[in-house]
Amino acid sequence: MLKVLKFGGTSVGTLDRIQNVADIIKTIKDDGHDVIAVVSAMSGQTNKLLEYAEHFSKSAMPNEIDMLLSSGERVTSALLSIALNEQGYKSTSMSGREAGIITNNDHTKARIESINTDNMKNAISDGKVIIVAGFQGISQHTSRVSTLGRGGSDLTAVAIAGAIKADVCEIYTDVDGIYTTDPRIEPKAKKLDKISYDEMLELASLGAKVLQNRSVEMAKKLNVNLVSRSSFTPEVEGTLITKEENIMEKPVVSGIALDKNQVRVGMYGVTDRPGIASLIFTALADSNINVDMIVQTVGVDGKTDLDFTIPTTDWEICKEVMKQFENDAENIDYNEAISKVSIVGVGMKSHTGVASKAFTALAKENINIRIISTSEIKISMIIEEKYSELAVRSLHDAYNLDK
Amino acid sequence: MLKVLKFGGTSVGTLDRIQNVADIIKTIKDDGHDVIAVVSAMSGQTNKLLEYAEHFSKSAMPNEIDMLLSSGERVTSALLSIALNEQGYKSTSMSGREAGIITNNDHTKARIESINTDNMKNAISDGKVIIVAGFQGISQHTSRVSTLGRGGSDLTAVAIAGAIKADVCEIYTDVDGIYTTDPRIEPKAKKLDKISYDEMLELASLGAKVLQNRSVEMAKKLNVNLVSRSSFTPEVEGTLITKEENIMEKPVVSGIALDKNQVRVGMYGVTDRPGIASLIFTALADSNINVDMIVQTVGVDGKTDLDFTIPTTDWEICKEVMKQFENDAENIDYNEAISKVSIVGVGMKSHTGVASKAFTALAKENINIRIISTSEIKISMIIEEKYSELAVRSLHDAYNLDK
Repeated sequence: MLKVLKFGGTSVGTLDRIQNVADIIKTIKDDGHDVIAVVSAMSGQTNKLLEYAEHFSKSAMPNEIDMLLSSGERVTSALLSIALNEQGYKSTSMSGREAGIITNNDHTKARIESINTDNMKNAISDGKVIIVAGFQGISQHTSRVSTLGRGGSDLTAVAIAGAIKADVCEIYTDVDGIYTTDPRIEPKAKKLDKISYDEMLELASLGAKVLQNRSVEMAKKLNVNLVSRSSFTPEVEGTLITKEENIMEKPVVSGIALDKNQVRVGMYGVTDRPGIASLIFTALADSNINVDMIVQTVGVDGKTDLDFTIPTTDWEICKEVMKQFENDAENIDYNEAISKVSIVGVGMKSHTGVASKAFTALAKENINIRIISTSEIKISMIIEEKYSELAVRSLHDAYNLDK
Repeated sequence: MLKVLKFGGTSVGTLDRIQNVADIIKTIKDDGHDVIAVVSAMSGQTNKLLEYAEHFSKSAMPNEIDMLLSSGERVTSALLSIALNEQGYKSTSMSGREAGIITNNDHTKARIESINTDNMKNAISDGKVIIVAGFQGISQHTSRVSTLGRGGSDLTAVAIAGAIKADVCEIYTDVDGIYTTDPRIEPKAKKLDKISYDEMLELASLGAKVLQNRSVEMAKKLNVNLVSRSSFTPEVEGTLITKEENIMEKPVVSGIALDKNQVRVGMYGVTDRPGIASLIFTALADSNINVDMIVQTVGVDGKTDLDFTIPTTDWEICKEVMKQFENDAENIDYNEAISKVSIVGVGMKSHTGVASKAFTALAKENINIRIISTSEIKISMIIEEKYSELAVRSLHDAYNLDK
């Protein structure tokens, strides 16, 4: 098999951790596989370089930031290659340029446009392990080094796996897979063997931080089998993220996600002038505020109550935007003490009674649901924040996720 | 004027020092000059990365060492460019590749083969200051990043100045020029305004550590006007190193150099078998031992005494090599307590009595000269080490170098 592996900053955070990664790669090579490993900068390095840049400028030119930051991954790739060679495994580091990664011109958040895999294919033919400096490519216009933004090394790995048609792309972090829910909240949480791209996307956007949506989306698009596993316990099989058709037994519910970083905005007694809701949400969208769940209730007096949630990070700017609508409502209030708990499962599509089971479980604990929203494979509920953990455990139990 | 500037590790060792370099460049730009600045890695960075590599391997592949080490200069070049832009001076960093520097394939000690100046010329036309990551290029065969070895950033600056026909190449360090002798030994030492390439080469090889011979040799070959000056006192004019024809008034003696890192090897009572000296010096050369001064005295009994000096660093290996000649001499001894003091001056060629003035000065202080060697522009003498400083001061005085 041809395996693309990705090791993040924590996995290569010290010289000992880099040696550990070399050992993981050796085991995989010894099993007869070809390996392309994508590495991040040693943890802390990128932030240190960013602080250096900020010492000089709060608005440094993006292409210089890229010149600066891309150095960290180059260091790790060279060190890992040196470690492997020392132990008799032929290897070569490759910068983004050498790995053939061409991006658009959007420095510090570039998009991969294409990958020329010739160089990598030649190295594989020569029996070499390839260590690619993640997070970077070269911009197609200027041929300068570019970086891919947050989660860029994951993206590098997935894109390479897609371009070179690797059998699998294994993302190594410090957790050993995707769990039915956060084990710190519910110790009975179980690691999933498999999960579909869509479920993973829902879980990730709901706060499961193992994989970023950008990478999962690309894996889905390129049909790359993604595995989430740990470099700290490489003997543990991780979770395979794959297309739904590859999952024989589709669980009704795969996992419970919790997101505490939401603020609920309530507009009460809104005068029902035409298009008022549209005006409000257009204004919020124009300020790049990510409105999540919306409920509108029209009273008998013709007045409307409008409830919606936004990420906590957008709170301040949201208050600014809402000032222009102050005269349209009797009252506008903000409630930070709420959280969003979500049930995700691809089997929901073909099962009924999934939602009512959730409502029953929460009712049994006297937890009020303030807003509900559903999609094909997800049910999200806004509840009081103090009930967060209790709600997660109740739901985990209600769907027998520990079995 | 087009000026190429070079700032070493100490000059860019902290964020404040980098800001200081930006200020120096701004002043030069404000005076109406175009600037290409070549920078080293922040001091300590290259050694840190080398230690990392050695953690994994004592014999890391040179091309991976280059991938590793070249990152340090990239960081400095990006930071300096950010600092300049922030203050309204258009600038761009360039890697060795972007600066068009092509080297041979000899990783970690590559030789510059050619420089394609198109990219730099375009940036200069755009009014930009160019910040080149020093010490690196790309190897002509593999197109991988290569590094130039010790003094590589100086070399980058001189080679660029030669290729782009710059008016001057200013090497900034923490000393403000070339002195008649080491001011720590002789406080009356004076900074030279001008010195010829050949004098500089002699002084450098004799222990004046400001400029390395590799760069001075290249400057001579490419006819680059080199200036040695300090980034700590940029208001002080440095020393111009140029071709002899550019120096109107040629001093008989320009400077006194001292080298304490020599060992004197004495072979006494050597049986005069044919070619014995040749055998010895061939064996030493084969072991890369740099034999410096040689004196051979043939006695009336047909036996020979052979005296020569080697660098202290070659002492151990020299002893190994000499074992095979143990039976050829009555006695072989090693004396580390010696030093070499040298008088350098291009005017010597046309003046007589220079050497005798030196002998008189040392005799007056009862300093015995053990070995003497002379070249067109240099007289070197081996003396007892304890007299080193006294000898330097006496000679400095004898040639009126403080005037």
